[in-house]
Amino acid sequence: MIIAVDAMGGDHAPDEIVKGAVKAAGENSNLTIKLYGDENKIKPFLNNEKNIKVIHTEEKILSTDEPVRAVRRKKNASMVLMAQTVKEEEADACVSAGNTGALMAAGLFIVGRIKGIDRPALAPTLPTIDGKGFVMLDLGANADAKPEHLMQYALMGSIYAEQVRGIKNPTVGLLNIGTEEGKGNDLTKQAYGLLQQSQLNFVGNVESRDLLNGVCDVVVTDGFTGNMVLKTIEGTAQALFGMLKDTFTSSVKNKLAAGLVKSDLKQLKGKLDYTEYGGAGLFGLNAPVIKAHGSSNANAVYNAIKQAHIMAEHNVSGKISESLNR
Amino acid sequence: MIIAVDAMGGDHAPDEIVKGAVKAAGENSNLTIKLYGDENKIKPFLNNEKNIKVIHTEEKILSTDEPVRAVRRKKNASMVLMAQTVKEEEADACVSAGNTGALMAAGLFIVGRIKGIDRPALAPTLPTIDGKGFVMLDLGANADAKPEHLMQYALMGSIYAEQVRGIKNPTVGLLNIGTEEGKGNDLTKQAYGLLQQSQLNFVGNVESRDLLNGVCDVVVTDGFTGNMVLKTIEGTAQALFGMLKDTFTSSVKNKLAAGLVKSDLKQLKGKLDYTEYGGAGLFGLNAPVIKAHGSSNANAVYNAIKQAHIMAEHNVSGKISESLNR
Repeated sequence: MIIAVDAMGGDHAPDEIVKGAVKAAGENSNLTIKLYGDENKIKPFLNNEKNIKVIHTEEKILSTDEPVRAVRRKKNASMVLMAQTVKEEEADACVSAGNTGALMAAGLFIVGRIKGIDRPALAPTLPTIDGKGFVMLDLGANADAKPEHLMQYALMGSIYAEQVRGIKNPTVGLLNIGTEEGKGNDLTKQAYGLLQQSQLNFVGNVESRDLLNGVCDVVVTDGFTGNMVLKTIEGTAQALFGMLKDTFTSSVKNKLAAGLVKSDLKQLKGKLDYTEYGGAGLFGLNAPVIKAHGSSNANAVYNAIKQAHIMAEHNVSGKISESLNR
Repeated sequence: MIIAVDAMGGDHAPDEIVKGAVKAAGENSNLTIKLYGDENKIKPFLNNEKNIKVIHTEEKILSTDEPVRAVRRKKNASMVLMAQTVKEEEADACVSAGNTGALMAAGLFIVGRIKGIDRPALAPTLPTIDGKGFVMLDLGANADAKPEHLMQYALMGSIYAEQVRGIKNPTVGLLNIGTEEGKGNDLTKQAYGLLQQSQLNFVGNVESRDLLNGVCDVVVTDGFTGNMVLKTIEGTAQALFGMLKDTFTSSVKNKLAAGLVKSDLKQLKGKLDYTEYGGAGLFGLNAPVIKAHGSSNANAVYNAIKQAHIMAEHNVSGKISESLNR
């Protein structure tokens, strides 16, 4: 198994990216990692691992680059070369913590879409209070979606949950503003009908207020709504933790209390840390393309590589294609 | 000034509704409150207030009723009679904590739309960390919206913020999945153009993760997205407070800490309590119609009546109408 990794993408590149790759390579000698980027910056973090290859390039895509243009013009960028090697079947999957839009463009234009999938979807595994997590898509690959796109998202998410997360007959929910049938906007009303007629384990509408409680295994929505909900969860959690911090430092008495619960509160915050669940898969492409969070540390990169590995091993792209053409 | 109140709507009706009305009537002798509902259940909470009139009716709309059908068929329901008296100009505004859909239907079919407004919008004032709050609309009166509807929402929210909340030249933001111009779905891209050309104090796109920090005075979105974001904030806050509670009761040490910060944490939770800001206005109707939260206590009802009073006093509906026909 060969995984291509963009060593130059992300806030902590290349240090943390290379460290994550070293950890993944060290754990599995059957895995070969191809690291794309500036070898002078990469090599200091390597220890002559036999299963890590460095492919030197000085060009890279910046987080501020306009995605489509960057992918088209920077032909030797680490991310572009990484995608290219997957297209040429000299790697089985790829991972980048770089510019999300550029990775989506590289996935679409270079790795290519699965026949029968109109639009790829960004699909992270989000945390739940019970620690099980759930797959949600689309989180923003395409702002607008049609009912049949939501149907395709459901199919891809379901295959991923089954093959990679090991959930038998995963439950699929449609994100909506009410649980009853007939609720929602034109898009969700029509998608409901399609999902109900499908072979999937469709459990109906699910509400955003229940997401963190783990309401189902796969949650389907359009990219605009998905991105909006993700940012709302992040913003609300951040605001509350901020207010909590202020409370705990507002008096001597409270500081004392903070000292007592500090480690447990840190653990609580860790429960909502979705880097533990790997990166976000770009579903619907000919091979697994994983977007690791921009702020990924070595552990997050390691998890994303592991995720790419499992997706490739279980041939998720092939199984999506098969199920579409059945 | 006469405010009509549906005494039978809400989880704690009529007790808390009547208590809230008594408080509002006691504070202001120029205000007359017309209470609609079962007088046998209402009277025990009254103390012969001169400016409260009870209009007896035994019919009421239940929270489980199908909204439009209930409003059409239950012609003597407390909510329907309340709306009727506003239509007949025998009250200046009305307040209900009952079935939201039914109140929207009663507002639309009985009180009636302002000429030039295509669709009414549900517009609560949501809390921010700094305690200032902001008006957000539409929170679910209409799931689907067109760009020109968002433009109308912006205009109504702006007039409300100025007239009722006393904010001079209020800032208006478009809820979107990125702050840059050109971000978003078809709807927000088109609405951006309309808002930019308007006379409003449009500050561009705002992201959901910044809402609790008070990013602008009026936030405009379609009803599906607005309802989704509101429920996500509620669900995330509830999940976090739940996890916090579990942490604080998980050990003797943590229980000790909880004892020290208990009152401050309660205050923190209170900061996010939007019943303090009154109810949600149904904007775009010929007179103020206020939806108090279903779980409203006397204080929330009191705040909603005060809000209806200020809206009527400042002739918000008239000013919306004027500005449309200018």
